[in-house]
Parts: sequence; structure tokens; C-alpha cells
Amino acid sequence: MPETLPPDSIGLVSTQLMHFAEPLQLECGKTLAKYDIAYETYGELNADASNAVLICHALSGDQHAAGYNSMEDRKPGWWDSSIGPGKPIDTDKFFVVCINNIGSCKGSSGPNTKKPDSEQYWGPDFPIVTVKDWVNSQYRFMLALNIQRWCAIIGGSLGGMQVMQWSIDYPDCIKHAVVIAAAPKLSAQNIAFNEVARQAIQSDPDFHNGHYMDHDSIPKRGLMLARMLGHITYLSDDAMRDKFGRDLREGKLNFGFDVEFQVESYLRYQGKSFVDRFDANSYLLMTKVLDYFDPARDYDDDLVAALSKASAQFMVISFTSDWRFAPERSREIVKALLDARKQVSYVEVEANQGHDAFLIPIPHYMNVFRNYMDNIAQEIAC
Amino acid sequence: MPETLPPDSIGLVSTQLMHFAEPLQLECGKTLAKYDIAYETYGELNADASNAVLICHALSGDQHAAGYNSMEDRKPGWWDSSIGPGKPIDTDKFFVVCINNIGSCKGSSGPNTKKPDSEQYWGPDFPIVTVKDWVNSQYRFMLALNIQRWCAIIGGSLGGMQVMQWSIDYPDCIKHAVVIAAAPKLSAQNIAFNEVARQAIQSDPDFHNGHYMDHDSIPKRGLMLARMLGHITYLSDDAMRDKFGRDLREGKLNFGFDVEFQVESYLRYQGKSFVDRFDANSYLLMTKVLDYFDPARDYDDDLVAALSKASAQFMVISFTSDWRFAPERSREIVKALLDARKQVSYVEVEANQGHDAFLIPIPHYMNVFRNYMDNIAQEIAC
Repeated sequence: MPETLPPDSIGLVSTQLMHFAEPLQLECGKTLAKYDIAYETYGELNADASNAVLICHALSGDQHAAGYNSMEDRKPGWWDSSIGPGKPIDTDKFFVVCINNIGSCKGSSGPNTKKPDSEQYWGPDFPIVTVKDWVNSQYRFMLALNIQRWCAIIGGSLGGMQVMQWSIDYPDCIKHAVVIAAAPKLSAQNIAFNEVARQAIQSDPDFHNGHYMDHDSIPKRGLMLARMLGHITYLSDDAMRDKFGRDLREGKLNFGFDVEFQVESYLRYQGKSFVDRFDANSYLLMTKVLDYFDPARDYDDDLVAALSKASAQFMVISFTSDWRFAPERSREIVKALLDARKQVSYVEVEANQGHDAFLIPIPHYMNVFRNYMDNIAQEIAC
Repeated sequence: MPETLPPDSIGLVSTQLMHFAEPLQLECGKTLAKYDIAYETYGELNADASNAVLICHALSGDQHAAGYNSMEDRKPGWWDSSIGPGKPIDTDKFFVVCINNIGSCKGSSGPNTKKPDSEQYWGPDFPIVTVKDWVNSQYRFMLALNIQRWCAIIGGSLGGMQVMQWSIDYPDCIKHAVVIAAAPKLSAQNIAFNEVARQAIQSDPDFHNGHYMDHDSIPKRGLMLARMLGHITYLSDDAMRDKFGRDLREGKLNFGFDVEFQVESYLRYQGKSFVDRFDANSYLLMTKVLDYFDPARDYDDDLVAALSKASAQFMVISFTSDWRFAPERSREIVKALLDARKQVSYVEVEANQGHDAFLIPIPHYMNVFRNYMDNIAQEIAC
């Protein structure tokens, strides 16, 4: 944490844990008998519990969205650019909640936690979860906080998918749906990238069919490759060109297999550092959650029919250079919403940062986001 | 080979080997004391040796571009769609030559062949080669065939890069340069994909620092991952959608880590089958050849200056959905050629097959290609 905090930082925050003893039926057919959810909150819930905002995290995200968990933290939470006093998601106005989804690895029940009433780690036995399952668990969590309705649910990427699912499954519990850099379902190419990442992890000899914790090992190579590949899809071709071009690390060609170009160095670093902070079994689960997301599936593949159930107002945001979930994918969502006669605003932000743009405080994006959130705050005040 | 050959097939062909005893100085500073080149030829060289066409292969290509090597072959050469009697590269008119580049693994000197006068395999000791080195070796090969000038040099992808380098390094030896689905140099994103492929191979415990042959092993997992990743970049998002969509292999979701979607099945198959037919050290070398290609480097990063040396006529072809080497990359080549006041025709073919389109007999592409080649044939006849 920096010695002098900027005034728009939420400052020191801490993760809490909530236990759920009631079984959770999952889409795969299995049941979680008990589970824990790790979460953080920022700001104060108002008297009529009308200012609660739920933040849904993406693939490698977690409950720590803003502020610092300790004085030693060098970086704030993953969406600190948008959450804090005076920021688009203004903690002076909203009670902001972010939970770590089950199956992930930052405190909530998942492969790196122990099975209920057991000393055994879940490992690869943790059941496959889906966006629908997450939304069900988030609904229970909402009730546990004595909240009846979120004034907004907000998420980027896989987070935006959870927002969509909320609007369909619990239409009365979500007033505003902010869907950023998302898609109504993965394309074959998206699935293909996930499959290569999974194969990288699963084919690593240190994976031991997912039981690597029992072998005191980590499938480092596979997880590193998965993350390197992920990073290519998070950045646009343009962003990579601007960031690295064909710059050489040592200023000259060495004609060998050590790092020649800066981009290689960047990717290796990103891959290596990820291994220390993410669990391989969780990564596998997260990619499956993405693959399976398809809210239209229960409605004869008719997205309009699926979204017809929604009563939220929608804000959909995309970024021009995002090729993981390109603007045309957001426009599919917008078109379905319009066809279903829902209220929707859509903004396509000019940005060359690729999919990562949703985490970056780009002025146009921040302005749009802030205005939308300010209107929600005014609705609450009325 | 099919029992009844279509009339436009060149039929049975065989690979030949040519030995070169004169040392080849390489760009990396090392020297190949002796080396072999595997090659195939189709058609007849005419009396004044004016109808010779050189085909340059891409990353995983080889000398077997057309026809069948044996009665048992189920598939013809990799560019059989374009080479044969009456095809765009008409073997009734042209003497067509295709060589396996050094460093590759289909008969020419490379990691899977033995060092000169030794029983030891080259393995990872085979020097890093570049497009410039290849062109030098191809030039010597040309002289060995008693050819002074190619009436055309033709290549797609990495093949097109060799064509460009020929036009700059040996301007008097190339009359027509046909550059298909290529780029003037790799982008940071292109290099990034190559780097992930390399890391996949090199981090495979069966790689043994490249000495896997000495350990009777093959880095199968790594090579499979590299190829799976490659395939994603060869196909367009649209092509994948058309080919697989979100089709399920078993018609229903199984919520597990076995193949769910058809695209996963396709990629796994492509990855596995590649392991049986390509050498991992060669794959590493080929990706480096791509990374290093940058003909402008010797000309103060000025592509126009580089191409100013060329005297060939150029035909540049790109495909709309190719995102590995997108049309805009071809347009960079065209613009530099125009700025250098060279003769160039450019065609952007509407095609949804992605980078792979250059291997597919798309009618518009074939017509353009055929017309251009027919004009060359007429020049020769005059």
C-alpha cells in the first residue's frame, strides 16, 4: 500500500468468509453439501438496503476488487480503477459487494479447499460449476446479507455473463445490469483457446490427474502456458504492437532460443508469476464455466426468449480492439435485448488495449460508466 | 493414391536428394560444412531453361507439393490443388521445383539428420537458419539444376516471405514473384503465439533440451499443444463457427473434462497426428525463421529501400478472413512495392477460411492465380 493513499482509494479492506450449510444443487447433477464464500464489501449499506451493488469477477479475478488487504500490498484490488470514493462505482454512495466464486481459489470452496468434514482436499473432485450455479450461490449470499435486490450487478468478461444470467434467473432482484466486454456465449474459437489451455495443464506430468497437491507438486509448466496464451487473447494486436513492437530485449539478435523479443519476456513473466497465485484445477474449472455459458440453451437457443424474462435496465459496453469478446458479440446481446423490448444503453468505447480495456480507466469509458452509476445513485436517493 | 487418378493430377512422383559439399555460411554466424536438399520436380524443363518455377513451402510444409509418393498415399502433396496439368501452376507448361528447406525434417539436412561424417544426429545443435539462408541455399540449388533464372517463385505464408527475400537478394534470378498470405515481418502477436508454441515444446519433460532422440523419447505433449495452437491461428473465427459452431460431440453436455464440443475433438486430433509426422526441433527452428524474417532490417528498417533492389513483377494475394497474416499486412507489402515503383498486382480474395485459404481452391483465387500464371507461360512462349 502506498504511504500516502490517494483520496479516491477505499484504503485497507479485509476479506471475510461466510459459511453456507444448506446444500447447493448444481447444474451438473451433483450437490455441494456445504460451502464457504469469501467476500469483501466497500461502503455502507443504507437503511432500506437499496444501494447494494454486486461485482462479478472474471476468470482469474477474486473477491478483492478494490483497496489494499495489507500495508505490504504493492497493488490494489483488480478493479480499483473503477471502485472507490468518487470513482464510477462510488463507495460513498453504494454498498459494494464482491464475492469469490465457488470453484475458484481465493478462499471460497474450490479445489484447493478441503471437502466438508474431511481433511482431504477437493482437488479434481470439485464438481464442475456453471454461471447458473454461481448466480444461485450469489442469490443465497444476497439473502444472507438481508438484501432483497441489487440496485446494480456489474461485471466484465465472464463477470458480464453472470450479470446476464442474474437478469434472467432472478429478474426481481436486479435493477440495473451492467454487462462489459462480454458475449452471449463462447465462439468455437474461444472454446478452442480454452481447450489448448486445458490440455497444457492436464498434459503436464506434474498434474497427476489433478491430484498434484497429494504429490507435493504443481503443474507449473502447464499453468504457465495457459496463462501466456490467455494474455495473447487479452491484448489486441495493436496493443502488443504499441507495447512491444519487434523490440529486442538485448538490442541485437542473438540467434538462439533465449528471449529475443520483448514480447517473449513479457509473456514468460506473466506466465511464471501466475503459477504462484492461481490453482491449476480452478483454472480448468473457470475455463469450463466459460465454455458452458449459454443462457439461451434453456430457451430453445433463443436469446430473445431468454432475455424476455429480464426486467432490469441494461448498460452494455464493449471495446473496439477487443477480439476475445469483440463489439459484435456485445451487439448480439444488445440486439436480443431490443428484440425483447428491454431498456438498453450501448456504448462501444474506442480503445486499443484489447479485452484488458475493461480494467483500464479509459476516459470515455469512465465517463459513461460514472454517468450511468450516478443516475442509479439518484434513483436511490429519490 | 485413388485408383482412378483425375486428369489434373501429376500422379506418382518421387523425392530426390542433392548433396552440397561447399560450405554454406549462415546469418547466425555458423557454417554448414555440407548439407543435403530433398526436392521434387514436376513437368519438364524446356530447352532454354526458361520455364522453371520454384515453390517455397511454409512452416510445416515440405518438398512434396503435388501428386502421390506411393500407391498407398491417401492424400496428395500439400499444394496439389494448385499444381498439376491444367492447374494454375500448370505442369504441362512449367518445370516446377519444390525443395525441403534446411532445418526442416523431410529429408533435407536438419535436426533429425546426422551431422556430416558422423553417426550423431544434429538434434538441437542444428544452427538457427533464416529466410535469407534458405534463399541462399535455394540459389545454389538453382545453379545445380543449370537454371539461371526462375520464371516465377511462388509461396504462401512463410513461403511468400522467401519469395520476397529472393526478389531482394537475387533480383536477376526471379522474373515473377507471387507472394500469397504473407507479411513483411511478424507482429508482436505473431511472435507471441510462436513463443507459446516453443515454450510448450521446450518445457515438455520429454524434450531433454532437444536431445530427445538420444533418450528414445518425443516431446509429444508439447508438439501437440504447439500444433493445436497453430490450428487456431490458421482458421478464422468464422470458419470455426461454420465448421463446428458449438456442436457437442455427444449431442448433450456431460459436465466433465472429456471432449464436449466438436472443436475440441478436431484440435486434439490435429495435434496428435502432427506428432507422428513432424520433428520438434524442426518446429522450433521454423518458428524462429518466422520471427527473424524482416527484410527491411538490413535497410534501416525501410521496406521500400529493401524492395527497391527488386526487378521482379509482383503478384500479391491475401484473404479477407486471414488473421494470422491479415490483408492489411499484404497491403503493407503492396504499398512498399508501389512506393519503390515496382510492378505489382494485388488481389484480396473474399474467403472465410482464414489463413488456410491459401491452400484451398477457392474459385476467385484460382482464377486470378491461373490468369497470372498463364500470362507468364505466354511470355515464355514468345
